[in-house]
Amino acid sequence: MINKTKNANHYLYEQVAHQIMSLIEEGILRPGERIPSVRKFSSRHNVSISTVLQAYYLLEDRGVIEARPQSGYYVRNCIRELPPEPKISYPPLSASRVRIEDLFMKIFETLSRPDIIQFGLASPHPDLLPSKRLNRTLGTILRRGNFAGNSYGEVRGYQPLRHQISRRALDWGCRFSDNDLLITFGCAEAVNLCLRAVARPGDTIAVESPTYFGLLQIIENLNMKVVEIATDPKDGISPEALEAVIRKRKVKACLLMPTFHNPLGSFMPEENKKRVVKLLAHYEIPLIEDDVYGDLYYGMERPRPMKALDKHGLVLLCGSFSKILAPGYRVGWVAPGRFTERVLRLKISNTVTTATLPQMAIAEMMQNGGYDHYLRKVRKAYATQAQVTTQAIKKYFPAGTKVTRPTGGFLLWVELPKSVDAMVLYQKALAQKISIVPGHIFSARQQYRNFIRISCGQQWSAELEQGLATLGQLAKKIVVGTKKIGDSVLTCTHD
Amino acid sequence: MINKTKNANHYLYEQVAHQIMSLIEEGILRPGERIPSVRKFSSRHNVSISTVLQAYYLLEDRGVIEARPQSGYYVRNCIRELPPEPKISYPPLSASRVRIEDLFMKIFETLSRPDIIQFGLASPHPDLLPSKRLNRTLGTILRRGNFAGNSYGEVRGYQPLRHQISRRALDWGCRFSDNDLLITFGCAEAVNLCLRAVARPGDTIAVESPTYFGLLQIIENLNMKVVEIATDPKDGISPEALEAVIRKRKVKACLLMPTFHNPLGSFMPEENKKRVVKLLAHYEIPLIEDDVYGDLYYGMERPRPMKALDKHGLVLLCGSFSKILAPGYRVGWVAPGRFTERVLRLKISNTVTTATLPQMAIAEMMQNGGYDHYLRKVRKAYATQAQVTTQAIKKYFPAGTKVTRPTGGFLLWVELPKSVDAMVLYQKALAQKISIVPGHIFSARQQYRNFIRISCGQQWSAELEQGLATLGQLAKKIVVGTKKIGDSVLTCTHD
Repeated sequence: MINKTKNANHYLYEQVAHQIMSLIEEGILRPGERIPSVRKFSSRHNVSISTVLQAYYLLEDRGVIEARPQSGYYVRNCIRELPPEPKISYPPLSASRVRIEDLFMKIFETLSRPDIIQFGLASPHPDLLPSKRLNRTLGTILRRGNFAGNSYGEVRGYQPLRHQISRRALDWGCRFSDNDLLITFGCAEAVNLCLRAVARPGDTIAVESPTYFGLLQIIENLNMKVVEIATDPKDGISPEALEAVIRKRKVKACLLMPTFHNPLGSFMPEENKKRVVKLLAHYEIPLIEDDVYGDLYYGMERPRPMKALDKHGLVLLCGSFSKILAPGYRVGWVAPGRFTERVLRLKISNTVTTATLPQMAIAEMMQNGGYDHYLRKVRKAYATQAQVTTQAIKKYFPAGTKVTRPTGGFLLWVELPKSVDAMVLYQKALAQKISIVPGHIFSARQQYRNFIRISCGQQWSAELEQGLATLGQLAKKIVVGTKKIGDSVLTCTHD
Repeated sequence: MINKTKNANHYLYEQVAHQIMSLIEEGILRPGERIPSVRKFSSRHNVSISTVLQAYYLLEDRGVIEARPQSGYYVRNCIRELPPEPKISYPPLSASRVRIEDLFMKIFETLSRPDIIQFGLASPHPDLLPSKRLNRTLGTILRRGNFAGNSYGEVRGYQPLRHQISRRALDWGCRFSDNDLLITFGCAEAVNLCLRAVARPGDTIAVESPTYFGLLQIIENLNMKVVEIATDPKDGISPEALEAVIRKRKVKACLLMPTFHNPLGSFMPEENKKRVVKLLAHYEIPLIEDDVYGDLYYGMERPRPMKALDKHGLVLLCGSFSKILAPGYRVGWVAPGRFTERVLRLKISNTVTTATLPQMAIAEMMQNGGYDHYLRKVRKAYATQAQVTTQAIKKYFPAGTKVTRPTGGFLLWVELPKSVDAMVLYQKALAQKISIVPGHIFSARQQYRNFIRISCGQQWSAELEQGLATLGQLAKKIVVGTKKIGDSVLTCTHD
């Protein structure tokens, strides 16, 4: 029977999920086998049907089980081959200036080299973009003799695009009007404007640890500080850790990616989201929510952003089409809640308006169903690619390697044995024309030195498998090398 | 005979020009009449031929005389109808926070309303943009099946576009390589990045007085201060005034528009440019040079930016295609000299890369001659429109109204009698569906209360003339009204 005592981080349905996972890991339930029906599990373990359902959805989201129509839930075929997951992080509690930019620039330059196998760039491979359809759509718009794209557009952005976004947002539980929404040059501009709207140089911003280096770089360049919060690779930021930090020091704003976090792929359970939104409302701390991967869920439903839980206009929700339709279009958006007027002014000051033609093409793709059609295709593709890549890592990487199990997006966070310095691996890989991103730049103080981020935003191929095999060999050599010389300076910063 | 004693601001050829102007203004030389030949003037007044030539070029640039092939120079037909010009400004010497944003937002909202006669927006009217050709060019690019526009492009910007710009810059005396150049989202982003690269919140930036409210707003939003420098509506910023301020207080950077200033249309004489560049080099003060109107010269040659005189990499030259090809494309650029690496990092942090497709279309327009072809046409159009608009102002506005005489761009700066509060005029005009920009927002402390900026970026029409007639009537009514009630609180801040 399930232990009903709740503690802060473990909810009932997670315990159910955990129990099923144990059955699978111990081989009691084997890949391809049917797991107990919801009704049966519910009555046998004396928990409600809705709790069991939640647990099964969670396991499905995590790629552990799959639903077969009119038949029930089955253990997925590949489940036993998955490597273990990294554990929750414990970053230092103090705030610090970000100092990753020099390193970032060095790494960034290699990210767009076409002669390189790209596990580095967190961007869909061109082959996976709906470029033909986008080009055709834009061509049609141009042939209509519409010249609206050449003059300054509305400062809030192209109205039909805003309308498409706000209409869709209803499905995720967010109610905002077209005028509560601004179009920006990608999510990067949106985050810049939001940070400038709610904080000033010297202020402290709370972020997940690790977190996307692009966000850290924005904070660095705005001369703000970060405080990193303990984050679970599965469930995202720890509400307790966040609360502890907020009680201890002045946190001016939070900048979080609750849905398919970069690099963790973590996805905050609804209960945690509620707790964090409530906590921040209590302290009147704005939350900048980066939701760029939200549409790329592997499960059945588009996850609700934290914005959907916000009653006080304190959540500034940022999205983008860069991870989905066309990174080169540079179209993002923001629903800044009570900060809309301030963000609008900063937008005008920063870039006046957003280029109109790319917005027109995207709006049309959304209107005519092309966007949804493409999403269905690409979400499946990423789910598969994440799994195949994980299996290859299991196969080729040194013993002790751990990998996250994202339920959306296309990024994997890989923890290597402590003796592997990711910068050394990065250099050696680059010499073999393979790019990865070393863990150092995912933290203001360059922690995560034995971690790398692997992007699976491209179609699986023999070349990719060979690339991972080479990477694994290089990592293994470093392990052996450090063992030989008894080097113990390279440590995991999760300690 | 010409007095050869030079002082700082009046050079020999300007004195020659001034003498010719006097002859015209006194009616000794009449519209349509031939002026003395260069040779004759030179020998009669004992000045060199090159000096006289310079003077004649200057007068030609200012639309006072015109060259007729194989015949010499003639007084232009409309010259005697020009109203007088405003005088040099004398802003306060202290630095101040900018506080124009609330007012700016109020005015900005009316600038894109289609139901309004637009003398407000400093942007070419859609009818004057080469939109058909741009659309065709972009369509061709799309049909080639090139998908490069959809993925992230190079972080510095589309290389063929950078090449076109750096090649052209050679003609203006600027030597920079393709890699010394970054493409940005319009000039606004370029100026933002440059300011952030060379200064910090709280630092003081020297600007012309008056100056473009968009620049003031950027400074305001970056929490920097401005110090306004005395500026001549013809010759631009006063080098002496700038030097006096620099000696007295810490100026972190200059942000100037030496070529066809917005709103003055002023154009700094080469000697002044040299003095300022030398002065700033001496104090190691970076100069951000906003050159967005540089291509829109009425004269024979593209003016050289101050960047061409810079030997120390201290000038950050910013340009844009927004005033020329397509505001809605949001394509600008910057050659940041010794600050290139810093600006590049800020660019990546601000918006990652610039959208690729608009850059491709512009590069192609430049390569295939479409850009030059269009420029030739539009430069003539703006020269004519500026003149016709000036004449209409002379005809319809209250006695005592003064107007600048730009030699490039499409903006006029109009000084009304002191009793006319431009905000009142703005409100009354808006009620009649006419937009202007009141002088208040062209200065950090809302000076220039009896000035307005009039844009002539649209083809002359009966509707425009009627609009100016209405404006003039409204202004006259205000003059009469204030005389009646003996109101003396409305004063000109040029005092």
